[in-house]
Amino acid sequence: MKAIFLCGGRGKRMFPVTEDKFLLDFLGKPLLLHQIELARQAGLNHFVIIGNPDNIDKIKQISRKIPGIKVDFALQEKSLGIADALKSAEFFLRGQLLVINPNDVFSSSAYTKILAQAKKNTASSYVLGYRVSEYFPGGYLQVNSKNELLHIVEKPNPGEEPSDLVNILIHCHNNPEELLRYIETVKTARDDVYECALDKMVRAGHKIKVVPYKDFWAPIKYPWHIFKVMEYFLDNAQPYVASSARISDTAHVEGKVIISENVKVLENAVIRGPVYIGANSVIGNNALVRDYSHIGAKSVIGYATEVKHSYIGDNCWFHSNYVGDSIIDDDCSLGAGAVLANFRLDEGNIQVKVGDNVIDTGYDKLGAIIGRGCRIGVNASLMPGVRVGPDSFVGPQVCLREDLPARKTVLPQFRYQITDNEASLSEAKRKELLRKLGKQSRRLD
Amino acid sequence: MKAIFLCGGRGKRMFPVTEDKFLLDFLGKPLLLHQIELARQAGLNHFVIIGNPDNIDKIKQISRKIPGIKVDFALQEKSLGIADALKSAEFFLRGQLLVINPNDVFSSSAYTKILAQAKKNTASSYVLGYRVSEYFPGGYLQVNSKNELLHIVEKPNPGEEPSDLVNILIHCHNNPEELLRYIETVKTARDDVYECALDKMVRAGHKIKVVPYKDFWAPIKYPWHIFKVMEYFLDNAQPYVASSARISDTAHVEGKVIISENVKVLENAVIRGPVYIGANSVIGNNALVRDYSHIGAKSVIGYATEVKHSYIGDNCWFHSNYVGDSIIDDDCSLGAGAVLANFRLDEGNIQVKVGDNVIDTGYDKLGAIIGRGCRIGVNASLMPGVRVGPDSFVGPQVCLREDLPARKTVLPQFRYQITDNEASLSEAKRKELLRKLGKQSRRLD
Amino acid sequence: MKAIFLCGGRGKRMFPVTEDKFLLDFLGKPLLLHQIELARQAGLNHFVIIGNPDNIDKIKQISRKIPGIKVDFALQEKSLGIADALKSAEFFLRGQLLVINPNDVFSSSAYTKILAQAKKNTASSYVLGYRVSEYFPGGYLQVNSKNELLHIVEKPNPGEEPSDLVNILIHCHNNPEELLRYIETVKTARDDVYECALDKMVRAGHKIKVVPYKDFWAPIKYPWHIFKVMEYFLDNAQPYVASSARISDTAHVEGKVIISENVKVLENAVIRGPVYIGANSVIGNNALVRDYSHIGAKSVIGYATEVKHSYIGDNCWFHSNYVGDSIIDDDCSLGAGAVLANFRLDEGNIQVKVGDNVIDTGYDKLGAIIGRGCRIGVNASLMPGVRVGPDSFVGPQVCLREDLPARKTVLPQFRYQITDNEASLSEAKRKELLRKLGKQSRRLD
Repeated sequence: MKAIFLCGGRGKRMFPVTEDKFLLDFLGKPLLLHQIELARQAGLNHFVIIGNPDNIDKIKQISRKIPGIKVDFALQEKSLGIADALKSAEFFLRGQLLVINPNDVFSSSAYTKILAQAKKNTASSYVLGYRVSEYFPGGYLQVNSKNELLHIVEKPNPGEEPSDLVNILIHCHNNPEELLRYIETVKTARDDVYECALDKMVRAGHKIKVVPYKDFWAPIKYPWHIFKVMEYFLDNAQPYVASSARISDTAHVEGKVIISENVKVLENAVIRGPVYIGANSVIGNNALVRDYSHIGAKSVIGYATEVKHSYIGDNCWFHSNYVGDSIIDDDCSLGAGAVLANFRLDEGNIQVKVGDNVIDTGYDKLGAIIGRGCRIGVNASLMPGVRVGPDSFVGPQVCLREDLPARKTVLPQFRYQITDNEASLSEAKRKELLRKLGKQSRRLD
Repeated sequence: MKAIFLCGGRGKRMFPVTEDKFLLDFLGKPLLLHQIELARQAGLNHFVIIGNPDNIDKIKQISRKIPGIKVDFALQEKSLGIADALKSAEFFLRGQLLVINPNDVFSSSAYTKILAQAKKNTASSYVLGYRVSEYFPGGYLQVNSKNELLHIVEKPNPGEEPSDLVNILIHCHNNPEELLRYIETVKTARDDVYECALDKMVRAGHKIKVVPYKDFWAPIKYPWHIFKVMEYFLDNAQPYVASSARISDTAHVEGKVIISENVKVLENAVIRGPVYIGANSVIGNNALVRDYSHIGAKSVIGYATEVKHSYIGDNCWFHSNYVGDSIIDDDCSLGAGAVLANFRLDEGNIQVKVGDNVIDTGYDKLGAIIGRGCRIGVNASLMPGVRVGPDSFVGPQVCLREDLPARKTVLPQFRYQITDNEASLSEAKRKELLRKLGKQSRRLD
Repeated sequence: MKAIFLCGGRGKRMFPVTEDKFLLDFLGKPLLLHQIELARQAGLNHFVIIGNPDNIDKIKQISRKIPGIKVDFALQEKSLGIADALKSAEFFLRGQLLVINPNDVFSSSAYTKILAQAKKNTASSYVLGYRVSEYFPGGYLQVNSKNELLHIVEKPNPGEEPSDLVNILIHCHNNPEELLRYIETVKTARDDVYECALDKMVRAGHKIKVVPYKDFWAPIKYPWHIFKVMEYFLDNAQPYVASSARISDTAHVEGKVIISENVKVLENAVIRGPVYIGANSVIGNNALVRDYSHIGAKSVIGYATEVKHSYIGDNCWFHSNYVGDSIIDDDCSLGAGAVLANFRLDEGNIQVKVGDNVIDTGYDKLGAIIGRGCRIGVNASLMPGVRVGPDSFVGPQVCLREDLPARKTVLPQFRYQITDNEASLSEAKRKELLRKLGKQSRRLD
């Protein structure tokens, strides 16, 4: 059986972080690698990965590292959906295959469940179904009492869902050529050719079985969805401290931590797991990293910085910052005193404008989302949920309340009043301070 | 002997903290409770507490908790002064009684002194007198060589004081009905009916004895007067650490501290007494609380926060803040980087406008005074002596230089210049930083 | 042999720190004292120090402290260059003498080299020459193969240097009267009378020998030149901790440190040498001082403050600050949260405008340069390389991007929007936070 990974789409809603969610690093490895390893555990050894012109090289680089598997690549020229992706890999679509969206994260039981069903060979296709308790903008599955698919509908309006069973894209097809033929017949103005083809197959008498799945499932559609995935990986990781890591005697490390090669944890730093720290990173003096934080490689969480429940990329440099519930891509720096606010004064949920839609993130604690290569000036304040495009600079003392596109610089235009300074400081007062300093060393005002 | 507590007044000058100063908590108990306990130590067991419609329920709640005493309550409909208060409790004013203002703080000798004199029964009334070295806006007592009252005058203009002996409202009256009769005869346009009545009694030949008192006395008229009371309670408290408190091995606690039930002091925190910390509060990592600070219950002095000589209410949340010489009522939060400045650049005394008067607080170190239920945004700066009314929000990065009324939101109206970012960051420089990071781990720029 | 110290010039380019660079303190002593001691080690015991009306008293005060040497003083009325200085000390210019600019820092070999040559007595004068690898705005020496001076030219334009050999002002003159005669004959519109006189002497057949020098040499022309000198002194100092210093058990001190009398290092502070800390200074709780920092006497590096590679004067008070690559003269205070930024967002070199010239400091990490007696408000941000004149105040929250002259006050003119606060905070949310606080003590949001 071949596993087909669909990596050709573009996650526009992920701005300002990567469009290719499967390239996000977790625990030191890109998600794609985690996905391949998970599939291998389920016994899959032959992979077809469909990428687009911008990401195919990175995909090749990652997947070629893995020994003992066969990987073929296909190029999807334009990101026109699942059906289009399958067509671009037509050459490989023979025999039994598993179509997988590696941008969703799920546990190994997703594979074992569908593969166990597929073994029985009682249907032409098998699709994974997940019961949701609230509206999810995906495909909905209507089934009969034998879990046979009756109808599939992509992204119905809220309230118009035919069921509470959502389609997860781990699909097994015993006869992909047939599927492709149906795809060719679909006429739709929406991005649901694949789902329409499945629907047509059902109507034409093909049996498609829905395999119920109840374990962990986390789609990554918006940047803040990274948190759930990060938490999942941290919860499932084993604690580990590399022997090459150097942790000061006066640092305090508690809870589950994964501390990678050559990490340095300096004096009086506190790490309170679950926390992952990537290779060669430094946790500086008196820094605090806590409560589901994930730090990439070669990053410096400098002096007097708190990182709480945040996902930080590689090569990021902070000092004297508060970073709470934030997502920061690679190669970013924060000036001293810069704060990523994570809580509204009115304590309401943080909302983010994506295109013309205002999305409720569901979080009342959400910090900034910062693309790669940004610089944030000293004493700047980024408001909850603000997004900063890649390669942008936020000037010192700026209070950023709206999103900033990529490659922009925002600077304050403050007006100041400069007058002659008529004050004369009292020498007596100064001396009194000094006297206190000398006599009562511990009373420093 | 009955003790009459006058709790019906309204401390308008206390804005933005409570009008009912006797409700302020010290060492985990409201001042009123401290006052009742003090009176009990002096042998008093029967109390009449006069409240107003807004506070009478709270008063009942507090005073009913005390076993072994009899408490009666009277309601003063409008806050029209001492004489009016006494009239509203007329029913109880029989036999020997002690009239007490529980908004002033004094030591037990105030009771023992006046009760010892009253035992001798050589006068119809006894009033406590305190010698001041500078003008105090209260009542002044003129006495003869036998300490018999000749004349009492309420709030003379500065420079027109008839003596340096100030009237403290712990007064013993052997015949309150007589006092009430005199009160009825007073005609005055000012808020001094009670004092005029005493004056009239003296002129009519009643003997009123002034009992000199030299120990601690602190009236609470303005919010910053809380400091002196807080210091008094801390100075007189016994050090105590609750067995349920959890103090990290790497926290440092020195000087006199009172640490209440379930308090947590996290790693590398420093507490330098005299300091009181209320039940269930948390002193976070690397926080510093020092030099006469009083933290209420369920508050979090979070990471990297310094609290110096401040009075903090219940359920306040700070992180990465400087809180110096400040008063913060219950249920307030400060965003990361918010600073309560406590020292003018010109090092002069902090002045506060109360009504039309500019009051010199006498302090050159005074921070903000914040009412209950406020939120202060990240990186905001509150200037010395600024007052923030209850339920108000101070936006991020706001530099608040003037008082803010209750239930207001103040937001910055900054203008920014957004341009294309033409900078290209040098990969070489970045690599050089990384090289340093790898080779000389301890040299982090 | 007499040593002539030229202290009459005025280092205008040193604004806002002292014009008299030889008065800068290093390791607790003014540079002038270091210079005299260096000269004594080379066997010199008779000094003539030429000062100007503003500094002569300080010079006398310093130099009179040294036992076992003879010091004469001369007054240069106006700061008109080397030749003018020598003329103002004409009375003392007899016999062999060494003319020294004590504003340049060099090692002892500068003296031993030139004195060894002078002993041979084969030339009328000896001048020290230093080979540079890039343009330096000083005097250039052209020599023959015997290192005899052919030509000297002061400050040629870049690219017009006659050699790569720069004139260092440690010059030995066997016949100063002759030199003075030549000086009288020079006609020049520039500030190069002395150099022209030497040039004339050479052309007239006097032999002037250039003594090559390769060890440490650091001229102090601009404030940031202080860093190199500071580093030099730190590199050459012996580690030392005064027995009167009190260092907390939980403080961490590593690398080469010089901790002077009565210094206090409080709990959890980290000092990472090379670092010098002057007498009676305090390194507060959780502070970090690192990487070539030099703190004067009676200064307080308060709570949560980082000082990195900075030169700090006496009696400076910081708390919750970042001070990186900065120079701060005596008697300055920084409010909590004030940051001295040291790195441009575009990571370019920091440039400083001196007069009409924009000078590239050569540093990509350079903080503020602050004159004596300044106050910086809370949460203020000073941009890299900004200079603040003495006795000036920078208001709270000011983002200072341009230099500020002496005795000025700069205040923000922010506009705010004040509206009614319609938000009602959820009691449920508050309680949930409290519940977390109680149950999972370590999860503090």
